[in-house]
Amino acid sequence: MDDIHFAVLGTGGIGRRTLEVSQHKDGLTAVAACDRNGVALDHDGLDVDELLAATEGNIASGPAEHASDSTPAAPTDDYASDGGAAAVEGGGVKQHGDQSGIVASEQGEPTETPIDDIIAESDAIDAVLLALPNLEHDFIPRVAERFAEADYEGVMIDVLKRSRVIGMLDDREDLLKASGITFVCGAGATPGFLTGAAALAAQSFVEVEEVEIWWGVGLKSGYEDNRGTVREDIAHLDGYDIETAREMSEAEIEALIDEHDGVLEFHDMEHADDVLLERAGICDAEDVHVGGVLDVRSDEKPTTTTVSVTGTTFDGETGTNTFELDDVTSMEANVNGPALGYLKAGVRNNRAGHYGVFGPADLMPGF
Amino acid sequence: MDDIHFAVLGTGGIGRRTLEVSQHKDGLTAVAACDRNGVALDHDGLDVDELLAATEGNIASGPAEHASDSTPAAPTDDYASDGGAAAVEGGGVKQHGDQSGIVASEQGEPTETPIDDIIAESDAIDAVLLALPNLEHDFIPRVAERFAEADYEGVMIDVLKRSRVIGMLDDREDLLKASGITFVCGAGATPGFLTGAAALAAQSFVEVEEVEIWWGVGLKSGYEDNRGTVREDIAHLDGYDIETAREMSEAEIEALIDEHDGVLEFHDMEHADDVLLERAGICDAEDVHVGGVLDVRSDEKPTTTTVSVTGTTFDGETGTNTFELDDVTSMEANVNGPALGYLKAGVRNNRAGHYGVFGPADLMPGF
Repeated sequence: MDDIHFAVLGTGGIGRRTLEVSQHKDGLTAVAACDRNGVALDHDGLDVDELLAATEGNIASGPAEHASDSTPAAPTDDYASDGGAAAVEGGGVKQHGDQSGIVASEQGEPTETPIDDIIAESDAIDAVLLALPNLEHDFIPRVAERFAEADYEGVMIDVLKRSRVIGMLDDREDLLKASGITFVCGAGATPGFLTGAAALAAQSFVEVEEVEIWWGVGLKSGYEDNRGTVREDIAHLDGYDIETAREMSEAEIEALIDEHDGVLEFHDMEHADDVLLERAGICDAEDVHVGGVLDVRSDEKPTTTTVSVTGTTFDGETGTNTFELDDVTSMEANVNGPALGYLKAGVRNNRAGHYGVFGPADLMPGF
Repeated sequence: MDDIHFAVLGTGGIGRRTLEVSQHKDGLTAVAACDRNGVALDHDGLDVDELLAATEGNIASGPAEHASDSTPAAPTDDYASDGGAAAVEGGGVKQHGDQSGIVASEQGEPTETPIDDIIAESDAIDAVLLALPNLEHDFIPRVAERFAEADYEGVMIDVLKRSRVIGMLDDREDLLKASGITFVCGAGATPGFLTGAAALAAQSFVEVEEVEIWWGVGLKSGYEDNRGTVREDIAHLDGYDIETAREMSEAEIEALIDEHDGVLEFHDMEHADDVLLERAGICDAEDVHVGGVLDVRSDEKPTTTTVSVTGTTFDGETGTNTFELDDVTSMEANVNGPALGYLKAGVRNNRAGHYGVFGPADLMPGF
């Protein structure tokens, strides 16, 4: 496969780790990255080390995993119409003044329209990873729309989690197809890696009865980078929802975490694995259960990440196939490796002229 | 996806079970099947139940898993030039005279050129599963060549095991591409299902150190249908090779099995998983180890089928991800489900105009 030139929108934890992991992979060249108030562009390849060093612990934007920081979200319509400035806006957790984020890199240029700047160069970009905060459910779909309106031909990929966003992407499928976009949605760890594992594990069966996705994350050293994800997860606890979680102050979140001694356990989360497996024909969304345990005070995983697929074989046996990730594999390894893996699969499809909206399971053997 | 009309060449264990499993799947219509001296064709869909009932325990051909029955193999060149009669020839284990095999079905017609008969109808066939004996290494590649020479546009898929066959298919890739063939090779259980699992499990890592594929098969009730596979496996035992295994009489094989109380253990088998993972860029072929335990006197698996992928993450941890099949899932479930799953993936690619030779790992997220 020819070298893939890709861009990363958002340089929070997921964006930065994706850039880092891409350096270990063959055939991937990072050519663009942006955050709230800066863009770095070099079609011969960014100096990723320099960019990471300059932005580490110095985030201008509220990236994907800072989905809901303490700064109230701007109204959704603004995201799609402001040329990108609000698009990569987020909390104030790590801002360091005018020189924060990408502009602190010698490759960074200040801009008020970071996403538009990348769209302007997108003819030479094969794939775009959306590591943006999906503050409102339709934010990522709207960014895709903007690329489509600019006739972008290539791959777009996100690591979103919420089931309802998939339908919003599907609603825009005609527009994406007309432009020549192969959109791979939900392509991080879960949904993503584990959704694919479930789709594969289902291959023994002719009928899938249940998919259980159970994750463990130890997030001590990664906590600062992932406050937004923690906040999103809190929405899944009993007595909380997206709105209440969004409105909590940092202090309230800390108090809640203290109450649980740093360990939060989640059941029946709204994770897009369900609709992604249903759209691939593997099982009904309601038969998919996602839960897990998060420990923000340890880097050890509190439980082993496991996918269990229970089904019936053509010869009438009922059994459970399992996929287990080693406890030493970090959340970052399991998000960013698969994100780039699906990105490559997306490019394969895109180059063959296969456009539209794909979930991870759609890129697996059929069911 | 529009309905997939598919053909099965060979109606031994794998061919018949694939027809059976396809009835449990959406979007698959079996329209053609052939064996040594008969062909059944109906573009509206075969009556699979009738066909299976007529051919069960009544095999005219030496199908894929009867790779080397006691009848000496005809010279290879004959396979490719005789219009297909020898193509599906095999041993005499279960032959029952003129009315054996497909011609015993009311849908079957006698023919001396079963493969050519299917090629003649291939305009209306989306995919062809090759469940043929690969008596000589280049037999399946030569059948593919014949379809290509007839300008077949569609999917061909096999469940071959031997590493060296992949290169022979690659040698013919230009011809396959020119015709519009998407050839998915090694798409059964192993290689196939487990190769795909290894490719997926690798996604946590930036460097894969070892892939261990360890299978368990309990083959008491399936033994008669799978004598050929057992013979092929014997070639992997210490002191045996393909030639000596091929020349063994049935009695010699029975004696060998008796000696081992029905349980044969294999290490470092020549299984195409190695080259299939290497060609997908996941690891070196030499880092892939395939072995397992076969019990021909029990239907219980003597060991749990497990894929273990050991690698290093971008953040420097070394770990092992694992994929385990429930012991109740039979070899047949794990061969034929994935074969149809990869067939569907092949059709997706073929319809997008993606031609050439693909291994299971090539249909997974990239590495």
